[in-house]
Amino acid sequence: MNEHQIDLSQYAVRTDLAREGHEMATQRRGEDSPIPGVYIEENTQDGITTSWIRIENQEGAAEIGKVPGLYFTLEVPGLRSGDSGLEQRVSQHFAEQFHHFMDEVGIAPNATCLVVGLGNVNVTADALGPMVVRHTMVTRHLFELAPDQVSDGYRSVCGVAPGVLGTTGIETSEIVRGIIEKAKPDFVIAFDSLASRALSRVNTTIQVADTGIHPGSGVGNNRQALNKESLGIPVIAVGIPTVVDAVTIAHNVIDFVMAHLSREIEGIKNNPLDPYNRPSIQELELHEPSPESKSKMLGMYGELEQNEKRQLIHEVLQPLGQNLIVTPKEVDSFIANMAKTVANGLNCALHEAVTMDNVASHTS
Amino acid sequence: MNEHQIDLSQYAVRTDLAREGHEMATQRRGEDSPIPGVYIEENTQDGITTSWIRIENQEGAAEIGKVPGLYFTLEVPGLRSGDSGLEQRVSQHFAEQFHHFMDEVGIAPNATCLVVGLGNVNVTADALGPMVVRHTMVTRHLFELAPDQVSDGYRSVCGVAPGVLGTTGIETSEIVRGIIEKAKPDFVIAFDSLASRALSRVNTTIQVADTGIHPGSGVGNNRQALNKESLGIPVIAVGIPTVVDAVTIAHNVIDFVMAHLSREIEGIKNNPLDPYNRPSIQELELHEPSPESKSKMLGMYGELEQNEKRQLIHEVLQPLGQNLIVTPKEVDSFIANMAKTVANGLNCALHEAVTMDNVASHTS
Amino acid sequence: MNEHQIDLSQYAVRTDLAREGHEMATQRRGEDSPIPGVYIEENTQDGITTSWIRIENQEGAAEIGKVPGLYFTLEVPGLRSGDSGLEQRVSQHFAEQFHHFMDEVGIAPNATCLVVGLGNVNVTADALGPMVVRHTMVTRHLFELAPDQVSDGYRSVCGVAPGVLGTTGIETSEIVRGIIEKAKPDFVIAFDSLASRALSRVNTTIQVADTGIHPGSGVGNNRQALNKESLGIPVIAVGIPTVVDAVTIAHNVIDFVMAHLSREIEGIKNNPLDPYNRPSIQELELHEPSPESKSKMLGMYGELEQNEKRQLIHEVLQPLGQNLIVTPKEVDSFIANMAKTVANGLNCALHEAVTMDNVASHTS
Amino acid sequence: MNEHQIDLSQYAVRTDLAREGHEMATQRRGEDSPIPGVYIEENTQDGITTSWIRIENQEGAAEIGKVPGLYFTLEVPGLRSGDSGLEQRVSQHFAEQFHHFMDEVGIAPNATCLVVGLGNVNVTADALGPMVVRHTMVTRHLFELAPDQVSDGYRSVCGVAPGVLGTTGIETSEIVRGIIEKAKPDFVIAFDSLASRALSRVNTTIQVADTGIHPGSGVGNNRQALNKESLGIPVIAVGIPTVVDAVTIAHNVIDFVMAHLSREIEGIKNNPLDPYNRPSIQELELHEPSPESKSKMLGMYGELEQNEKRQLIHEVLQPLGQNLIVTPKEVDSFIANMAKTVANGLNCALHEAVTMDNVASHTS
Repeated sequence: MNEHQIDLSQYAVRTDLAREGHEMATQRRGEDSPIPGVYIEENTQDGITTSWIRIENQEGAAEIGKVPGLYFTLEVPGLRSGDSGLEQRVSQHFAEQFHHFMDEVGIAPNATCLVVGLGNVNVTADALGPMVVRHTMVTRHLFELAPDQVSDGYRSVCGVAPGVLGTTGIETSEIVRGIIEKAKPDFVIAFDSLASRALSRVNTTIQVADTGIHPGSGVGNNRQALNKESLGIPVIAVGIPTVVDAVTIAHNVIDFVMAHLSREIEGIKNNPLDPYNRPSIQELELHEPSPESKSKMLGMYGELEQNEKRQLIHEVLQPLGQNLIVTPKEVDSFIANMAKTVANGLNCALHEAVTMDNVASHTS
Repeated sequence: MNEHQIDLSQYAVRTDLAREGHEMATQRRGEDSPIPGVYIEENTQDGITTSWIRIENQEGAAEIGKVPGLYFTLEVPGLRSGDSGLEQRVSQHFAEQFHHFMDEVGIAPNATCLVVGLGNVNVTADALGPMVVRHTMVTRHLFELAPDQVSDGYRSVCGVAPGVLGTTGIETSEIVRGIIEKAKPDFVIAFDSLASRALSRVNTTIQVADTGIHPGSGVGNNRQALNKESLGIPVIAVGIPTVVDAVTIAHNVIDFVMAHLSREIEGIKNNPLDPYNRPSIQELELHEPSPESKSKMLGMYGELEQNEKRQLIHEVLQPLGQNLIVTPKEVDSFIANMAKTVANGLNCALHEAVTMDNVASHTS
Repeated sequence: MNEHQIDLSQYAVRTDLAREGHEMATQRRGEDSPIPGVYIEENTQDGITTSWIRIENQEGAAEIGKVPGLYFTLEVPGLRSGDSGLEQRVSQHFAEQFHHFMDEVGIAPNATCLVVGLGNVNVTADALGPMVVRHTMVTRHLFELAPDQVSDGYRSVCGVAPGVLGTTGIETSEIVRGIIEKAKPDFVIAFDSLASRALSRVNTTIQVADTGIHPGSGVGNNRQALNKESLGIPVIAVGIPTVVDAVTIAHNVIDFVMAHLSREIEGIKNNPLDPYNRPSIQELELHEPSPESKSKMLGMYGELEQNEKRQLIHEVLQPLGQNLIVTPKEVDSFIANMAKTVANGLNCALHEAVTMDNVASHTS
Repeated sequence: MNEHQIDLSQYAVRTDLAREGHEMATQRRGEDSPIPGVYIEENTQDGITTSWIRIENQEGAAEIGKVPGLYFTLEVPGLRSGDSGLEQRVSQHFAEQFHHFMDEVGIAPNATCLVVGLGNVNVTADALGPMVVRHTMVTRHLFELAPDQVSDGYRSVCGVAPGVLGTTGIETSEIVRGIIEKAKPDFVIAFDSLASRALSRVNTTIQVADTGIHPGSGVGNNRQALNKESLGIPVIAVGIPTVVDAVTIAHNVIDFVMAHLSREIEGIKNNPLDPYNRPSIQELELHEPSPESKSKMLGMYGELEQNEKRQLIHEVLQPLGQNLIVTPKEVDSFIANMAKTVANGLNCALHEAVTMDNVASHTS
């Protein structure tokens, strides 16, 4: 369709979330055809959906578009309403799940930890990592300076916000490696802002993985891996979508519009709860229009493959410049609340002596 | 196409900018058919496009979608690059144009002024107004307390950031009216963040109008007017687009995609400067595909009217909630730089004794 | 001693706190000689000292240096440690005492309220008032727009941060009067940062009074009163010391040094808990050296009256400029925590339906 | 005088500034007796006083209380007025002097540089270092990724803000060493907030030294050295006083008071410009009362040695807790302006192609 072919991979659906990759794969394969080598467990309670996904082999990895490993995801649509009661429950639940996750991936109860907050503290949408470190309860210096005065129930934890390549001039992975060689932690937990495929995920989803951080992922587009291979110690990655790109918004909307029209034509019954009897976003996401519908609804555009559509949109928007990454208007409070929520949970998970009842008095 | 009809006006192309309204009207009418009762003058120099639009009657107002009055607009695509040299030139140019504008609308050289910064200082994307007030050089208290010590060349200026309804519980217009009754200024200049139709306008465009601020305009959705009728004194409105809604992004992109495809099919020659020979955004904006192209390119969707398309997109996105107003990721520095640039220009325009050479030492 | 006599009042011990005035008066008079027309009740529990002072007549007012009225004060030395458990208890206790205070001064349970946050949001040490308003739960617009949808247990509350004279050019009292005429609240609660005589009070003390705000008090040096006389409705003033002036620090220290030396010479036994057997600050504060000690210890300086000493110090420091108000290094977090603590208590006191268990989910 | 003797060094006059040390030594010795091994050159122009001090041997070092090395200091009392014209001149002058300094201490024109911003970005008074790094123009990644695209006139510069021990749990020097081992710069420039002896120096003085950063210096009390010995490469330290401790304020004031009284008694003529014919701070600083005056003026206290007085004050204040570091109320804007001023100068000094005319467009 287009003579001036460009590397397609850069337009490919960029999914930093295993959960999204699994959903897309399931849609492609159909519900009855489980993905080989992939195990998923999912559960919704009190407004929090928890999913555990294990990708056991390269076959499953290829289907889902994520490297093999263990992932868990919390999805909490209510988080954006700023309800502190819900934030407390999410902190508590995150603490429990994260504690279980550390057990599963073989982190010893007294293993020493380096918390890394990736991102640029001066760009709010990219500041989540540094803000989590700010609220992290660090203790390593107490163990170093006065080990006999540290009470039981605490683990040695240190934390850094290494900045981003554009403001330091140094690859983030190099900075982290340099610090690891001095501080000698047993494992790393790295927090990063992610780009999401969907506005609805921004500041409502938390993903934890034992696979580390991979090049090209994250809002700041990390250029080098932070994982066991590169750092020599286990790396748990915690990612939270904070931005979405305009290409994705446009792409999603066009697909939603197509699904909407095609459901009307095909006479599919919609969400009975909606006063106007409209389909829900989930119904639209799951609906795959027939090829005839596609062509009828959206003409030539409808006949394009997903990647072709993304490439086309990307190309059309390119002259607008690099400002295509967008974030909800309320980004300031979203990020501040999420950083506090996650850090509270982290502090409880890392230190046996810290609980949701006393976490606030341990930290700033 | 849709049984559950909703008030169309809320999906109508929301244009806070006369310049955009004029462009759209011109596109509809064709270049050769000037809009009756509307006068426009436009000029581009040093990367700054200046347009003056006068809407003289209701007929012109209806075509453009803005109330009758005098408008001037600066468009400076380079502003987002953070180039301080350009920022200085924009301040200087804004000062000159704003000074001329005050003359045109009959503001006396020694008329006392109240600068109102609309918006919520705690939401960065809505903080432009309060930040402009912060950098505004206020002098009214000096005139009140020690009038004989104020040098020549200064005007009596005061400034307030009245907050937003959701954080004060009081209509902004009521607060402003209350303050006007006490401070008794001769005229008001009100700064507001606008929602734009186009990502490309965010933090690159400044509009000044003698029409005041109208209900429903602005990022914060002012509920009541701030104009000569409601306040009893002239109100100059300065609006700067800082956000864009997701509906608009999707809508624009779909139109761009359609224009792009249709130009390819119709064999139209593109921007010869582009290495891939792609059309520019301007070429896409100006291209109106033929009805056959529309249908061929985008099927049923292509046949919808503009408003129907917006309604459809809006409806499809509605279940996502209220978080559809988005802003570029770099919003923090964009807003800070723009507020400083505009405030510097304002200070020069208001006080004869203040020039771009000394403005920095007058303000914080 | 000094020819170039200047108005002494400006060097007079500036006590914004009735509690401090009472202490000083008691020291002067001796414990056995109660101050006529002044009633005090005091109680310490869980690290919070609560004092209620009622000044009934001008005689008592003159002794204490505060206008007649009802005052209550919370003193919580632990607040600066950032212990959130303590912050919660202070919020709860403040809510109870403030509720009782409103009853005592005749505020009806459904009286509508305007919360005024005095101070400059851009100077951290002066930002407490605006920050309290930011966390205040405002409801007036709900009562105005949809009164039948407001649940029982809520009061109509609105809030403004009117800025300071230097940044608005308008007297704060004028702005507040203008807003009151429009919003028509039944009473005002005004929050202000105070200057303290003692570093130890900074961000540890909260004073509530039914006397309003007086000219010259507060960090920002309000020039006009905010009280029942000037506004026409009751004004409850809540003041929190956030700064201390260098004159005071120097003055205090010299007095402490003198008391310290004089106690050594006079052979007075010190705090037995101190490993070095030093006197506590309280012991120093309460110790009044004999005139001979004064002269022996500090020579001519020791023989000066309090006001003469303050005048001398002030005069000596004057060439250093106006920046003699000082604040602890950690001012950022102190102010943020105090604003949140006080606002939580305020929200519980104002709305029956809000309690410490649900306050967090009501506010940002 | 005091049985419970404590290590005096901690009360010793804490002078992070060679200039202050030199002044004190000169006062002790008298003007006619130059300090052996110490060379000083001083010059005042346009409101900027520039001093170059070279300490050549241990004898001079002992007199001045600073390690041997080359120091230059800018003193600009006007900087606190926020006059941007002056800020520009200081940037320009700092650039020239710093360039000369690099030559003097043998830094090659193309030597690669790591800029280290010491301090805690979340405590405004300690945030100067991180804020300077934020405004530093980093280029190392461009040299690494696309060396042939870097124009002439630029040097390879990288920058980090390593945080403080209390928030990272890792000694700052360890973090810096780890990063140096990866980024391999030829030399380090370290920015730090200093504690000053005098309120008048806060945010008005900049000191540059080739001696590195020493343990116990700086606002954050660095525990380990950052110098050529510890890091293996030259370390230029840039220190700016941002806080003053209460002990110092009290101590200064008492001395000023004593000098003031003693000058009155001794009939010394004061500053003829002062309307009240008072001595200036400089006159007070330079006046050394006779022993008789001391005793007469301040009794026993006046007879104490400087260190004894400091110890006494420190001891008296100790029960007040650790929050005795104070900072001017306007710390927010002081620090922001100073960081920008210094960073602009630094960028010009490091990159030949950057000048005060274009520096603003190179950085954020």
